[in-house]
Amino acid sequence: MLWHNSIVPVTRRNQVAKKGSAPARRSPCPVACSLDIFGDRWTLLIVRDLFFGRARFKDFTASPEGIPTNILADRLVRLLAHGVVEQIPAEDGTKRLAYRLTEKGKSLGSVLKAVRDWGLAWDKSTRVQLKPGT
Amino acid sequence: MLWHNSIVPVTRRNQVAKKGSAPARRSPCPVACSLDIFGDRWTLLIVRDLFFGRARFKDFTASPEGIPTNILADRLVRLLAHGVVEQIPAEDGTKRLAYRLTEKGKSLGSVLKAVRDWGLAWDKSTRVQLKPGT
Repeated sequence: MLWHNSIVPVTRRNQVAKKGSAPARRSPCPVACSLDIFGDRWTLLIVRDLFFGRARFKDFTASPEGIPTNILADRLVRLLAHGVVEQIPAEDGTKRLAYRLTEKGKSLGSVLKAVRDWGLAWDKSTRVQLKPGT
Repeated sequence: MLWHNSIVPVTRRNQVAKKGSAPARRSPCPVACSLDIFGDRWTLLIVRDLFFGRARFKDFTASPEGIPTNILADRLVRLLAHGVVEQIPAEDGTKRLAYRLTEKGKSLGSVLKAVRDWGLAWDKSTRVQLKPGT
């Protein structure tokens, strides 16, 4: 029994997650564990924006989906905790910080591409942004 | 400006979604529109189970992640509404219904595979279920 039901009983174990951290592990399934990190309506949009070269907190809030700042802050903490993004000094000479994808984060490109392609194939009203800021 | 900010202003338009329906469209981005359908911690697990041949409501609740029945019911309504699954008579001779993936749903296999592969690559404690029910 590869699910190891004895270790991961059929109960809701995700109620006690600390703020910013991923919920408790639900099973050893790689899909479930991945969704514990980015399974929501916003996280992959932040990853998309990072691929587009956006890096600062305010850059992410400027995207057309209008991510609420409390959700953005929570997701960035989670992505940092899971090593998907890392902080770097901002390029404007201030002491502010920016974010960039780690190797683990960059490898989410395949997930992002699959999600994008599915959307393009099944919702003809969608379109890809050709380059950042356009 | 391919995001059409004038059409999709930076506001939270997802607060008025009817139960079971997808939230209001946030932008023309295919990633955002796809996440409006399956961007949560549970929906792709239901799709995974459908690929494994599970078909009945009780089958999904038996998976090790222990999906709450109210969430399962909500997600099945949403998947039906978006043509990702369809209802068929159950094979037990009763009048009960079961679910199966449509072509649109089957094409989520590429998304599921990308998510699975990312999980397997970056969380060495995860493992793939070899076959249904094992």
